[in-house]
Amino acid sequence: MKVIKPGLRIGILGGGQLARMLCLKGQEMGFEMHVFSAHKTDPAAQVTAFHHQGTTQQKNSLKKFIACVDYLTFESEFVNIKDLKLAARGFKNMQPHPDLMALLQDRWSQKLLLAQNKIPTADFVIIDNHSDLKKAFTHFGEAFVIKKRMFGYDGYGTFVVRTKKDLAAATNKLPATNTFCIAEKWIPFRRELAISLVNNGKIIEALPLVETFQQNSRCLWVKGPTQHKAAPSLTLKLKKFLETLDYRGLITFELFDCGRDLAINEVAPRVHNSAHYTLDALNCDQFSLHLRAITGQSLPSIKPLSSGFAMWNLLGQSQKVPIWTLPSNSHLHWYGKKENRAGRKMGHLNSLASSPDKALAQVRKAQRKFKL
Amino acid sequence: MKVIKPGLRIGILGGGQLARMLCLKGQEMGFEMHVFSAHKTDPAAQVTAFHHQGTTQQKNSLKKFIACVDYLTFESEFVNIKDLKLAARGFKNMQPHPDLMALLQDRWSQKLLLAQNKIPTADFVIIDNHSDLKKAFTHFGEAFVIKKRMFGYDGYGTFVVRTKKDLAAATNKLPATNTFCIAEKWIPFRRELAISLVNNGKIIEALPLVETFQQNSRCLWVKGPTQHKAAPSLTLKLKKFLETLDYRGLITFELFDCGRDLAINEVAPRVHNSAHYTLDALNCDQFSLHLRAITGQSLPSIKPLSSGFAMWNLLGQSQKVPIWTLPSNSHLHWYGKKENRAGRKMGHLNSLASSPDKALAQVRKAQRKFKL
Repeated sequence: MKVIKPGLRIGILGGGQLARMLCLKGQEMGFEMHVFSAHKTDPAAQVTAFHHQGTTQQKNSLKKFIACVDYLTFESEFVNIKDLKLAARGFKNMQPHPDLMALLQDRWSQKLLLAQNKIPTADFVIIDNHSDLKKAFTHFGEAFVIKKRMFGYDGYGTFVVRTKKDLAAATNKLPATNTFCIAEKWIPFRRELAISLVNNGKIIEALPLVETFQQNSRCLWVKGPTQHKAAPSLTLKLKKFLETLDYRGLITFELFDCGRDLAINEVAPRVHNSAHYTLDALNCDQFSLHLRAITGQSLPSIKPLSSGFAMWNLLGQSQKVPIWTLPSNSHLHWYGKKENRAGRKMGHLNSLASSPDKALAQVRKAQRKFKL
Repeated sequence: MKVIKPGLRIGILGGGQLARMLCLKGQEMGFEMHVFSAHKTDPAAQVTAFHHQGTTQQKNSLKKFIACVDYLTFESEFVNIKDLKLAARGFKNMQPHPDLMALLQDRWSQKLLLAQNKIPTADFVIIDNHSDLKKAFTHFGEAFVIKKRMFGYDGYGTFVVRTKKDLAAATNKLPATNTFCIAEKWIPFRRELAISLVNNGKIIEALPLVETFQQNSRCLWVKGPTQHKAAPSLTLKLKKFLETLDYRGLITFELFDCGRDLAINEVAPRVHNSAHYTLDALNCDQFSLHLRAITGQSLPSIKPLSSGFAMWNLLGQSQKVPIWTLPSNSHLHWYGKKENRAGRKMGHLNSLASSPDKALAQVRKAQRKFKL
């Protein structure tokens, strides 16, 4: 394992809630956490003395930032990797590796990578133009999903096509050429699941399998641990996949429970909303695990602290200033966003109980204390 | 319960490790954490965008700081309360109440307060001058301990007197008048214990009783939970004591286990080293509990997450730059101090296990990864 000295500097590209929680957990372990983001009021910028104002488009600011840190990591996969590699020339300690980020940030190359590695995922085709859209309609027969290749999140840039009318609507919304989408076969699923894994280069650990519930394409809650008979073999495949890629850090796989089988829905090469429960429910949280992994430190053998846990996303309902009282049965993690708006992730609640459902009932009750 | 809005500002007087951990946990809950301390490299100053440089002797800086926050609390009881009250004139949300801090910061008034409230503690007399020292020698017969009334910590300012030679040595070290000490009967104890309680004004919760081990008057480790047959009745008395005083926030009582009985050694009106285990071992840590209490929020019903836990203080051994690798079986909490020195508290390790002794064995093993 690599030796650490006081004040080892970790830089995060991005200043949102994921960066904020990376900062808080990194500081706990004694890392000096540096944040690169556009505004000094950003969630992560508020919780460190080392905020660097800038965007990845500003090449000089980016270069200066990289020169200030010992390790560099990502809050989001949607970074211009070409520009980043130019700015980071000669810089060794960027994890996950930028070439992998480039492959995983684009749903087309992400799906190709999964298929090449025999990881189960929905049948897919590329959509470069309107003619490809028509072909997809013929190819899939029944329903399919159009997804933007990049920058999609929380259902933004996603259309479901079942009828000719849907096809016409999608055609109208998307550019005729350079459409930059993929089409995926619609998978009828029983429930959505997620699993995170973490690789420090020596060992790959899997976190518990969890159930996730989406409302209007946004995650509302997570509960766990859960089981699926296909999970052990899929976990082995995913470990092999990460080993093959030499992916370092934490990564999350969103899954469809198709009854007998599991299929990968999406891959997020970073810390992820579906693993926020780890802040209170495991012997080591996802943020600490990611930071340990990218700095080449040992990983604890992961254990849940209780037989049930749940997470509830506090989603904005209005543009009003939120108000609340702290619940007594749950942990609040609030992101410090300066503006509330409908659907925006403002914070989350975690709870432990003797079963996943009891924990879910607790966070469901606790979220009523928040007027958002 | 009081309603919270985003960005509620909490100010901490002090910038050391206790302030740092208050910051990290306050930020997790969405408080905007403001730190008032002398240097921008102080442990707490590194982990917030809201550091205010100054000392409590600088009245204008202090006034400005107080004007920036909604609530104010203490990292240390050793603040000039008269000056603070002047600077904070008209400011309502200072907790614990400054008048209580004044009583508890001075060992003489602290002991009087304990005695008045029938809380068991060692027999004591005041030492204002050299003549009082002689009287104490006659009064106590065998051994007694001289303690400075203020600013003592980690054994600084403490002398044990057993013989005439010890008495002469103490007399030489202490000023002839305005000696500003107390003398306490030496209590032969089996082991040292500690218990923290927290009061939000509506409910008082007790944290688990723990055993603490001191080496060279400095806490080396803590393990728990532990039991003592006098603990339940003492806990009731301490709850009544806090209710009578209307003390708000977390408070720690260091205890002597005298066999059949327990006696209070010292009272620390703040978050405390002996409760650092709570960061990983309880469903709510002492820093969050203190902040919830001083802002009038509900308190969770406190539960340990495991049947055994332990904490190991990482104490400096030299002035060299420390190096380490992260242990896999323990959580590191590092304080970011800019200089290492012998005996200095640089960080701590927490571990959970099936018994207190197994947890202690884990942190004892883990601390070997640190070269301090």
